[in-house]
Amino acid sequence: MANERINPTVLAIDTSGPVAGCALLKDGRIVHQVAMNHGLTHSETIMPAVDGALSAAGLSCADVDVFAAVAGPGSFTGVRIGVCAAKGLAHAVGKPCAAVHALEALAMNFCGFDGLVCPILDARCGQVYCAAFDVSGGLPVRALADAAEPLSDFLARLPGDRRLMFVGDGVPVHAEAVRAALGERARIAPANLRDLRADAACVLAASHPETWTDAAALRPIYLRAPQAERERKKRVES
Amino acid sequence: MANERINPTVLAIDTSGPVAGCALLKDGRIVHQVAMNHGLTHSETIMPAVDGALSAAGLSCADVDVFAAVAGPGSFTGVRIGVCAAKGLAHAVGKPCAAVHALEALAMNFCGFDGLVCPILDARCGQVYCAAFDVSGGLPVRALADAAEPLSDFLARLPGDRRLMFVGDGVPVHAEAVRAALGERARIAPANLRDLRADAACVLAASHPETWTDAAALRPIYLRAPQAERERKKRVES
Repeated sequence: MANERINPTVLAIDTSGPVAGCALLKDGRIVHQVAMNHGLTHSETIMPAVDGALSAAGLSCADVDVFAAVAGPGSFTGVRIGVCAAKGLAHAVGKPCAAVHALEALAMNFCGFDGLVCPILDARCGQVYCAAFDVSGGLPVRALADAAEPLSDFLARLPGDRRLMFVGDGVPVHAEAVRAALGERARIAPANLRDLRADAACVLAASHPETWTDAAALRPIYLRAPQAERERKKRVES
Repeated sequence: MANERINPTVLAIDTSGPVAGCALLKDGRIVHQVAMNHGLTHSETIMPAVDGALSAAGLSCADVDVFAAVAGPGSFTGVRIGVCAAKGLAHAVGKPCAAVHALEALAMNFCGFDGLVCPILDARCGQVYCAAFDVSGGLPVRALADAAEPLSDFLARLPGDRRLMFVGDGVPVHAEAVRAALGERARIAPANLRDLRADAACVLAASHPETWTDAAALRPIYLRAPQAERERKKRVES
């Protein structure tokens, strides 16, 4: 079976947040990586980026063993763009897909960090998407469950005896509040490690072949209902 | 002065090793990043990548405050390609250059790591280019001087009481030897953090405006004479 290969060729796509990115892992090496954070429409930028990555690497879709997409949490529209792109490519060549968790991929930016990595994503409505992972042994091990909650609620849930590294697109907005609440214990990711990178999604997908699924079974990861559904529910209940 | 800007716009170019990369830092964010590791000729790939990064970000060379190049140690030809590209672009628009140290840029991949980051680059002739940095406080602080030496000499120089993270293109070749010599203390960078990334060079160049120079003054960083010169010396002396 393709997913029992030791060194799978992985194409990862991420359009779940402000960055549109893709990366190719081949023979245990990241052979191509692109990350764009220009405020452009991901639906317009991602497919040319995928095409550019494959052709620069001299590969076609048929050479890819698994198509990974960052499946959320994140922007509802963004998540669906990435998931649908991976689904379409995988379906076309009869290969599996892998759903990569956005917060876990962010934690991969700090592999080896002795403490907890705390990804925070801007979830609007006064909330962050957040979680905490222990990456001291390499791959992320979950320390706190996913939540969509106010930043202060998240900070109150964090253990008091660990160093904490904050990462993700919530960092530029919330860094001061984090420092004010946690002082010296809190570290803020520098710009080069702050954003989700598709190369991290490649490594996660390659490390967890047990999560590979049929293209048709790839699903977004949502932490709350979309705004349209929340508003409809409110109208129905009132 | 341009180099006193708090949030400079930085274009960084790296062709010093197996990866050809460029990245753009603007308003404290990495707005574009590309990394190619296809075994193609860097001289053919880097300028289209720079052009693509600038146009995707809606910028021209005149909008860039400093042109950074990874200046070595690394491949002699590769270093000169990147340095000359940065020099040419900077000269054209009358902006400064910044020489970024390849081993220091690699250490930036592990900002916050509680131990020493040990970049090793394949220097051929049975040697590695190597050094060690303390990144526990953020930016890399040098712990061991640069050297071009056999891996075993480098491992013998490392302190016995710190966790050690090995990173760089020497890792795939030397990981087993490192593990055999150092056991549990040695950690090996995962694929997503193993290679030099131009985004790290952007952050270093932005953090050290005191190192910015005229384009004409940008120089490669060599740890030993090129092979051609070493062979000539040997012939002259014998």
